[in-house]
Amino acid sequence: MAPEPITCKAAVCWGAKQDFVIEDVIVGVPAAGEVRIKITATGVCHTDEYTRSGADPEGIFPCIMGHEGAGIVESVGEGVTTLQVGDHVIPCYTPQCRNCKFCKSNKTNLCSVIRSTQGRGLMPNGTSRFTCKRNGETIYHFMGTSTFSEYTVLPEISVAKIEKTAPLDKVCLLGCGITTGYGAALNTMQVEKDSTVAVFGMGAVGLAVIMGCKAAGARRIIAVDINSKKFDIAKQFGATECVNPRDYKEPIQQVLTDLTVEDGFGGLDYTFECIGLAETMRAALECCHKGWGQSCIIGVAASGVEIATRPFQLVTGRRWAGSAFGGFKSRDGVPALVDKYLKHELKVDEFITHHFSLNEINEAFHAMHNGDCIRAIIHF
Amino acid sequence: MAPEPITCKAAVCWGAKQDFVIEDVIVGVPAAGEVRIKITATGVCHTDEYTRSGADPEGIFPCIMGHEGAGIVESVGEGVTTLQVGDHVIPCYTPQCRNCKFCKSNKTNLCSVIRSTQGRGLMPNGTSRFTCKRNGETIYHFMGTSTFSEYTVLPEISVAKIEKTAPLDKVCLLGCGITTGYGAALNTMQVEKDSTVAVFGMGAVGLAVIMGCKAAGARRIIAVDINSKKFDIAKQFGATECVNPRDYKEPIQQVLTDLTVEDGFGGLDYTFECIGLAETMRAALECCHKGWGQSCIIGVAASGVEIATRPFQLVTGRRWAGSAFGGFKSRDGVPALVDKYLKHELKVDEFITHHFSLNEINEAFHAMHNGDCIRAIIHF
Repeated sequence: MAPEPITCKAAVCWGAKQDFVIEDVIVGVPAAGEVRIKITATGVCHTDEYTRSGADPEGIFPCIMGHEGAGIVESVGEGVTTLQVGDHVIPCYTPQCRNCKFCKSNKTNLCSVIRSTQGRGLMPNGTSRFTCKRNGETIYHFMGTSTFSEYTVLPEISVAKIEKTAPLDKVCLLGCGITTGYGAALNTMQVEKDSTVAVFGMGAVGLAVIMGCKAAGARRIIAVDINSKKFDIAKQFGATECVNPRDYKEPIQQVLTDLTVEDGFGGLDYTFECIGLAETMRAALECCHKGWGQSCIIGVAASGVEIATRPFQLVTGRRWAGSAFGGFKSRDGVPALVDKYLKHELKVDEFITHHFSLNEINEAFHAMHNGDCIRAIIHF
Repeated sequence: MAPEPITCKAAVCWGAKQDFVIEDVIVGVPAAGEVRIKITATGVCHTDEYTRSGADPEGIFPCIMGHEGAGIVESVGEGVTTLQVGDHVIPCYTPQCRNCKFCKSNKTNLCSVIRSTQGRGLMPNGTSRFTCKRNGETIYHFMGTSTFSEYTVLPEISVAKIEKTAPLDKVCLLGCGITTGYGAALNTMQVEKDSTVAVFGMGAVGLAVIMGCKAAGARRIIAVDINSKKFDIAKQFGATECVNPRDYKEPIQQVLTDLTVEDGFGGLDYTFECIGLAETMRAALECCHKGWGQSCIIGVAASGVEIATRPFQLVTGRRWAGSAFGGFKSRDGVPALVDKYLKHELKVDEFITHHFSLNEINEAFHAMHNGDCIRAIIHF
């Protein structure tokens, strides 16, 4: 039986800086190569807030945000071969087509085959699957995922099929934050055993970086945050030391270099910026060890921001890198992480501090700004 | 028989922006762990000019410059075990003590054990070996090498012993430029077979990068220079294409990205900045391929200069690195390069375009500013 449009609830953001409005939306049938997913849970991430707040110049409204969800395939479009109705899945904002030059390279996960339509809030054929029932307006997709809806549609190449025994209201977080941080440590930077590490920013991504560095066998893992309340959880995840820059007069790069002097020289083997500020990106680079220290930018900076340093920092052996979605090729990497979680080799539950219903989504966004919120889950 | 002080000719720079003056200098006896070398030839490098011109805020005057020389050990100080009188050697501005944390790491060549005295123009015991005979003034060392003198003194750990059959007036260039460029491609960046490369700046370092990329099997090697007269020699060294940014309206990063589109995306696998300008450093990064392109800064920027880019460039998979002395550990790497040259696996003669005597050193510096000079050799 061919799928029909579905009317369901979704949190629509009608414009920058506006609160979400729960609307009845009509979710179209999946076109060729697409699947429709019943979302059962979703996380709330700062990248959603970045667009909602109006800071993202490429934000497109009205849209249905959300990119950290999990659910069950409800119907599939023509030609879909890798997924079937009833599969448990995680929608991924980075696809894995397995055919493009990026997918064929073992150096990157940035499959770019649907980049242009996804960036315009559309499905690969150039149209949206969301319509507002109340006024008939087209609602745009967001990051190719739009998980703040009871039903959403994705291209098959953006959907990771996962083990059915995994609790969807936990592993949804593998759709973004945890994967991003954990993979930055293990895939992008390939942190080595016995190395020294500093992680800037103790949100979910920073904590996941710490978890990755611990898994890699790092010897010292220094958590850096201006909110000392984060330090207990940082230690639970594997931080060996915690530093609050506000406790020092010196710039944080100097503090960390001084703190790590061994054989006459200080500096970290690896650093990670999980905040999104140019200033901390610079600090993270400049506290790297001369000769081999490498810094990874994960945080998303505000539009137009530039990072700077003296070229001497690089000529004397530091390297500046960045990571997106933890370097994981989405359809291969996410199911593997779910399996790791099921084998108790990966923390996920420990990131979850708040729970809301879809009706309470604006409260979930307010909670995100509190210092005690790591991740809020919206249960459908 | 214990060594005595030697009086000889040297080119002294008495102050920033001043021409060199040939003076009689008294070269002291080598102290413990030091060797005195009779210099027979030296190259002239832009780094000498950087200090002579006054642009280097850490320049110390009066000094004897020169850091691209070769010669023969004339006498050795107490406790020297790895060198003896008569050995053919290349003085190195980067030592290799074999004991510090940098020497023990396989990730860097930046032995830092004598960094502080070398930076102050002094030998490791805190004194100079040079005195002006005419007025009794102390003359400072430069980069730990001071090869613009008939005799110079270096710490044993900074001296590479080479094969005696190598022509010193050729292999002296392995003391800096050639080694720096060749090693940046092969050691620091480890350019891979079939990769695409752009090299900014067709001086000796840039040409040596091209030679290194060709040795690595790079598929496309694009030479970039605003002086199209350099393109013939660039092709002799292995450039497959040459681009003059002045022939285009678009920024050079755009030109190079457009020129390298394959499967819908342009950008280089590796780029090298061999000029020393913040603007070209940025361009070199930004024309790297999304997902995996890496850029290496080799050129020395003016004091206080900062480099900048958008963090998005790194988050989407580009990496920014730097290289000094080509990543070669000096006492191991330089003799190996001399052997490569003797086996005709490394070009050296082809870099040499001008010849001068020590008396003509100021002319050698003027020649360096001409577009047709790659390397000038001063013969003693």
